Amino acid sequence: MQETRLDTARIRAARRVIDPVFLDTPLYRCEALEPGLGCTVSVKLETANPVRSFKGRGTEVVASLLADNASRAAVCASAGNLGQALAWSGRGRGLDITVVASRSATRAKLDRIRALDAGLELVDGDHEVARERAAAIARYDGIRLVEDSLDIETCEGAATIGLELVDTAPSFDAVLIALGGGALATGVGHVVKALAPEVEVICVQPLGAPALTHSWRRRRVVTTDSTDTIADGVAGRRPIPAVLDDLLLVADDAVLVQEASITAGMRMLLDHAGLVVEPSAALGIAAILEDRDRFAHRWVERRPTATAAPTATGRR
Amino acid sequence: MQETRLDTARIRAARRVIDPVFLDTPLYRCEALEPGLGCTVSVKLETANPVRSFKGRGTEVVASLLADNASRAAVCASAGNLGQALAWSGRGRGLDITVVASRSATRAKLDRIRALDAGLELVDGDHEVARERAAAIARYDGIRLVEDSLDIETCEGAATIGLELVDTAPSFDAVLIALGGGALATGVGHVVKALAPEVEVICVQPLGAPALTHSWRRRRVVTTDSTDTIADGVAGRRPIPAVLDDLLLVADDAVLVQEASITAGMRMLLDHAGLVVEPSAALGIAAILEDRDRFAHRWVERRPTATAAPTATGRR
Repeated sequence: MQETRLDTARIRAARRVIDPVFLDTPLYRCEALEPGLGCTVSVKLETANPVRSFKGRGTEVVASLLADNASRAAVCASAGNLGQALAWSGRGRGLDITVVASRSATRAKLDRIRALDAGLELVDGDHEVARERAAAIARYDGIRLVEDSLDIETCEGAATIGLELVDTAPSFDAVLIALGGGALATGVGHVVKALAPEVEVICVQPLGAPALTHSWRRRRVVTTDSTDTIADGVAGRRPIPAVLDDLLLVADDAVLVQEASITAGMRMLLDHAGLVVEPSAALGIAAILEDRDRFAHRWVERRPTATAAPTATGRR
Repeated sequence: MQETRLDTARIRAARRVIDPVFLDTPLYRCEALEPGLGCTVSVKLETANPVRSFKGRGTEVVASLLADNASRAAVCASAGNLGQALAWSGRGRGLDITVVASRSATRAKLDRIRALDAGLELVDGDHEVARERAAAIARYDGIRLVEDSLDIETCEGAATIGLELVDTAPSFDAVLIALGGGALATGVGHVVKALAPEVEVICVQPLGAPALTHSWRRRRVVTTDSTDTIADGVAGRRPIPAVLDDLLLVADDAVLVQEASITAGMRMLLDHAGLVVEPSAALGIAAILEDRDRFAHRWVERRPTATAAPTATGRR
């Protein structure tokens, strides 16, 4: 594999600064999903923690470094999950955290960010507008801007999921990863390609927010003017060039799924697995539902993270 | 503490024969629940595994011993969870498992028992009738009868939850444990009283299925003629004397909760924690809702296991 920005030894080191409450998350075969999907499927659950998403893995790495450097504050843009996670990690280390979010972000997530003692600034417009505002605050206040997927710590944190998959799971055929900004896909993808290169890394994005998938297919950054998807956690319009470069090295495929498949996936996870997941976490199931022949008769495992990243992996 | 049937060293040994998929389950503070409960609360989640309950811990111990002894078959009565767990553990070790359940048991659970290749026999009547039928099958076929809560392996398996609580959690004031047959309460209670004796062990049972709570209060077995509760997982009528003896040694209190509190607890867990739990797993929350003053200003943690055992613990 050509070198990505990530390094497996650094990812292993990242595990040591992450609060254990975010690590070693459940990974289990979910047979009740299998009749509906036509393949063997496992789940890696990333929601049973204080911030209900895998983002705490990355913000723990970020906040640990900030605290080591005697920093006092940081700011990020967030659709909700990164903001909660950074607020949680910052609070525990005495950092002042500001989160910028779109006024249209999920209200429950915004409430939880406030409850975690972070400053919350709402902007008119979408996540890209929030990113611009967060960058402006960082410049004006001279504080650290935490940029999801661009900042290597966020990728390394997400990549620790890949270590847990590779270290504990039986061998599998494919891993399905929700594709948003790209931290999860490049992080998990790096580890899988480094340690289990025969496993297919498949990224999944909504048809209504396809910028990074289009970029991957054309091997150059493609932006879109808008997004239109229920999966708010992955709804970006402007892929980050460095992230695309990494994604080109680790992803074997990137697929787009319809909204109806995403909601069908959420429903399946609720009805058959007893899991409440946000739309972004149903992308992996949606991809199987849209292309059952591709996965048929493979021993497939999947990992939903109710707040961001479903992954399906096919086990041999 | 006077001696129960349990032994902490044996419980630690039990961990070594239990499939890791059932161990080291998530334990995390759930701040979103706290405004509604008036105390600090943590969750230990026992549903993110192949059988969606903690019962796999005990059936792994049972099935491991059976396999070591070259046994070929076993039978149990179940409201659904034990049956799934024994079917799962037995299938992995080549054992023929028969499960006897009430015809009125939850259909989804019965379907999953069948899907796990166990023989399923349905009886008219409630769980106590199923217990009698399972005992008859065991006698007739000369195979092992697995009796939840009576069989020490089921208590030892459940008790491993207690080890994880005591070993990994910050100190806490109280642990709330769903009370059904008593394996969970005596198992977790034994470990807590042995290793953290200052922690209050509070058992919670539905008003509509109060036999073991009444027995604990009167210090003698009290049976009831019927049960009437949505919490099917804990709806027994005939407490087991040996289990009551242990419960008298480890429980500091046993409380009864109303049906409306159980459903309110389920709703809170869904709305604020994103957890789908069966009624039995909402008993701990129900107990806090019914006696908020008792827990107010304590740092309270709680553990729901979506299939049987919510526990609330107050942390100092």
